[in-house]
Amino acid sequence: MQIGILGSGDVGRALGTGFATIGHSVKIGSRNPDQEKIRQWVAKTGATASAGSFADAAAFGELLVLATAWSGTADAIRLAGPENAATKVLIDVTNPLDFSAGMPPRLAIGHTDSGGEQVQRWLPKARVVKAFNIVGSAHMFRPQFPGGPPDMFICGEDADAKKIVTRLLHSFEWAVNDIGGIMGARYLEPLAMVWILHFAATGSGNHAFKLLRK
Amino acid sequence: MQIGILGSGDVGRALGTGFATIGHSVKIGSRNPDQEKIRQWVAKTGATASAGSFADAAAFGELLVLATAWSGTADAIRLAGPENAATKVLIDVTNPLDFSAGMPPRLAIGHTDSGGEQVQRWLPKARVVKAFNIVGSAHMFRPQFPGGPPDMFICGEDADAKKIVTRLLHSFEWAVNDIGGIMGARYLEPLAMVWILHFAATGSGNHAFKLLRK
Repeated sequence: MQIGILGSGDVGRALGTGFATIGHSVKIGSRNPDQEKIRQWVAKTGATASAGSFADAAAFGELLVLATAWSGTADAIRLAGPENAATKVLIDVTNPLDFSAGMPPRLAIGHTDSGGEQVQRWLPKARVVKAFNIVGSAHMFRPQFPGGPPDMFICGEDADAKKIVTRLLHSFEWAVNDIGGIMGARYLEPLAMVWILHFAATGSGNHAFKLLRK
Repeated sequence: MQIGILGSGDVGRALGTGFATIGHSVKIGSRNPDQEKIRQWVAKTGATASAGSFADAAAFGELLVLATAWSGTADAIRLAGPENAATKVLIDVTNPLDFSAGMPPRLAIGHTDSGGEQVQRWLPKARVVKAFNIVGSAHMFRPQFPGGPPDMFICGEDADAKKIVTRLLHSFEWAVNDIGGIMGARYLEPLAMVWILHFAATGSGNHAFKLLRK
């Protein structure tokens, strides 16, 4: 298959290498396809790899991959030509990240609040810690899964409160990951939705998330 | 420790059982603490378990657990008395779910759009599939993790496009979960943020999500 990749960053090149490795022809599109990192990628990847403008890559691809930084995405799509994407499968690898407030980034679109933040506003003097919201009640205590234990992600403003909750979670036999302040509820409540949608798709609530590491 | 649980549903009772099992005293708070399911839970859980009003449970707990349905959460907090939560650790287990449009639910607060939906609006004739957005570029192709393969979650409007992307992901050696239409990007882009925040906390990008099952 001919694959057109919009975006020549680490993500675009990594996916391009993957597609080439399994036998596809890949053209990476960029504002500046002559830049060194792209020429190196083409040379290393071999005869099935090439580079060109966004429009070149979009026209080339039978399947397209959108792998741009969010701030450049609208422009890349305009340059690629929406007509070059019509009817084609387009894999959207982008994340709408806003770095304007420093690191870590925030989501630039659509995510403005969460239940956890609302609860903390309702109870300004309580030390709210979001936890246990990403799994069904049957598996909250001592979850038993092949390959487990699963991971519980928590967030909240108060470090001591999170230490207390972490100890409790360990006694409930969870691995624990602290993702930061209560704003993290914007990310953990959607994670509950992923759990729920898998339940909806399979009819089974016997699943839980694990963060694989190495 | 004395634990006060606001909410007597499956979640509140499951967590109450867990806390009692590891030696804590638990009082479950409810609008109607005399209902059968609560009396049965108290009888089964033993001498360290009790029930009462939301205010009773909030006053009793040295640590509080908020385990209400979202639609009843504001009212439960009002009945519990915010002063009863002041300075205390409160574990927020709620998810702000809106069931008004049927099953599956949507997030009731804060989540109104996503990059994936924006991309689909920019390219109305393309068959957009969100994929590869929840892992760093180093692990997009043939991810190698103890306990793997990790899971890629995808979403999009076009079933055939998702089949094509699923086949590609399998050839990239990912397990694949389809969570539904492109609105699912509202859940997968926050999942990327969980990945990013773990990176920010640990300095390592060598992690990926797996959905444990049994």
